[in-house]
Amino acid sequence: MKNSIKVFASASVGNVACGFDVFGFAVEEPGDEVVMRLANEPGVAISKVTGDDGRLPNSSAKNTAGVAVKAFLDHIGSKKGIEIELHKKMPLGSGLGSSAASAVAAVFAANELLGHPLSRKELLPFAMEGERIACGDAHADNVAPSLLGGFVLIRGYDPLDVIKIPTPQDLFCTIVHPHIEIRTEEARKILPKNIPMKDAIQQWANTAGLVTGMMQSDFDLIGRSLQDVVVEPVRAKLIPGFYSVKKAALDAGALGCSISGSGPSMFALSKNGETAEKIGLAMQGAFAQEKIESTIYVSRINEEGPRDLSRNS
Amino acid sequence: MKNSIKVFASASVGNVACGFDVFGFAVEEPGDEVVMRLANEPGVAISKVTGDDGRLPNSSAKNTAGVAVKAFLDHIGSKKGIEIELHKKMPLGSGLGSSAASAVAAVFAANELLGHPLSRKELLPFAMEGERIACGDAHADNVAPSLLGGFVLIRGYDPLDVIKIPTPQDLFCTIVHPHIEIRTEEARKILPKNIPMKDAIQQWANTAGLVTGMMQSDFDLIGRSLQDVVVEPVRAKLIPGFYSVKKAALDAGALGCSISGSGPSMFALSKNGETAEKIGLAMQGAFAQEKIESTIYVSRINEEGPRDLSRNS
Repeated sequence: MKNSIKVFASASVGNVACGFDVFGFAVEEPGDEVVMRLANEPGVAISKVTGDDGRLPNSSAKNTAGVAVKAFLDHIGSKKGIEIELHKKMPLGSGLGSSAASAVAAVFAANELLGHPLSRKELLPFAMEGERIACGDAHADNVAPSLLGGFVLIRGYDPLDVIKIPTPQDLFCTIVHPHIEIRTEEARKILPKNIPMKDAIQQWANTAGLVTGMMQSDFDLIGRSLQDVVVEPVRAKLIPGFYSVKKAALDAGALGCSISGSGPSMFALSKNGETAEKIGLAMQGAFAQEKIESTIYVSRINEEGPRDLSRNS
Repeated sequence: MKNSIKVFASASVGNVACGFDVFGFAVEEPGDEVVMRLANEPGVAISKVTGDDGRLPNSSAKNTAGVAVKAFLDHIGSKKGIEIELHKKMPLGSGLGSSAASAVAAVFAANELLGHPLSRKELLPFAMEGERIACGDAHADNVAPSLLGGFVLIRGYDPLDVIKIPTPQDLFCTIVHPHIEIRTEEARKILPKNIPMKDAIQQWANTAGLVTGMMQSDFDLIGRSLQDVVVEPVRAKLIPGFYSVKKAALDAGALGCSISGSGPSMFALSKNGETAEKIGLAMQGAFAQEKIESTIYVSRINEEGPRDLSRNS
């Protein structure tokens, strides 16, 4: 058994336009790194946090990664001591599942370090506990794709029912993170409690269309289905220039473009890497018109999930 | 070119639990037959209607089949005269797409008779015109599966976007038609204009889950996704004994059970023919407890669509 491990877990795009609260997919970058060691003292300790500008709690009872690992250790009945270094390598509060990436990296690392007692799917509830501390709610739409890799449907929570949807190999994702902040709670608060039946019907036609498009590698269908008539119209106003950024993405060849999670990051899908790069620059340009700086990330869908970085070192 | 043709078009199950207004699939029976002849007089004439107990209009301008054929002839600019015999071989007002079956049989027959100027998908708008006369609305969730065969998603109407979803070969459908009547308008009228966001989320998770289950031949996932939290709870009260019939189906091994279209027929899916037969008897028994007679239909999903019955005669 190893004494230490270094794990990378990636960011993820939740909602994916039509699939509010039920779809999410993992990207190849950005993401977080966790270095974990077996410790002499029992319990879970956060020994170091970098890249967070001092914004994350070091107390393991309040830190996403600490809470997730504690829940995992309690479940398997381990008395081992665990020491965690958390290296944030992605923006916080960006709508890219930053807390999920930390929690996933941590439970994945702990599971590897303790001889792999659980499968990946079995780790999900513990990573979700980390999300609960960070967001007040044990949502799975970032945790599940970050942990399992790929494009994921969360069909239900009671019991938890998570399904991986195959995606076309050539599918690329462009993420543009504008350097502004939206609080998840605020983004939730402005959502209506009731919605028109006709919008709901359009939305459930689109979720069915999107998974069909993914499974049949039908890019046109993916594009036609990447429409959110329920949440995007409400949240767009939280992102300055939303509609011009979206238009820039579509004009540059995106299949579709919407808000990543609760924002402010926006994502676009496209069918090759070159177009994905072009889309990123177009979106960044549109944000610049609003005097907003932004960061571009381009990658394929990350089918692999967390990566053991110590394996090759 | 032939002078006459005999065509069968099948019944269909609309909505399919979670997919209100967007899903439908064709079954092998029951269905309607149309006998069509080229006539000397121009225009569309209904020469005979059987099996309707005198309830359907003979005027071709008011009859589903007549209207559909007229729209088709106008579109292709044909001046040919067409004479239609319509043989209803399925119950009217049953929630099984009876008017859709008539319209589909008629436009399919006319297209064959006139040398196949249009593809099946191109025929869809004309069959939908027939639906508009019958139901007041040009819905496609019965017409599309009856015409194209198989399990169909109607992703949108503007423009019309119809997608065929592959289904597992072993999937069987049981339909039980209780001998009571529900008017489609009434079934529509009681639906709420707004629905809770949380129910909508559950529903769009289920539509995504159902197509994934179909495409991956994952019967358990099909079963878990065959849940309607929006429409079924409202319409169940229109069908005496609904919940005991549903329970009987599930107890007999159904993957799921709900209302076919706007009812009163109920459908259940299962993974072999023997179970499907057993489910039919169990559902019929439960209706009998309510002193309601019923008819059972068991078949696979009908992947073929309309059938030219004159080809083998």
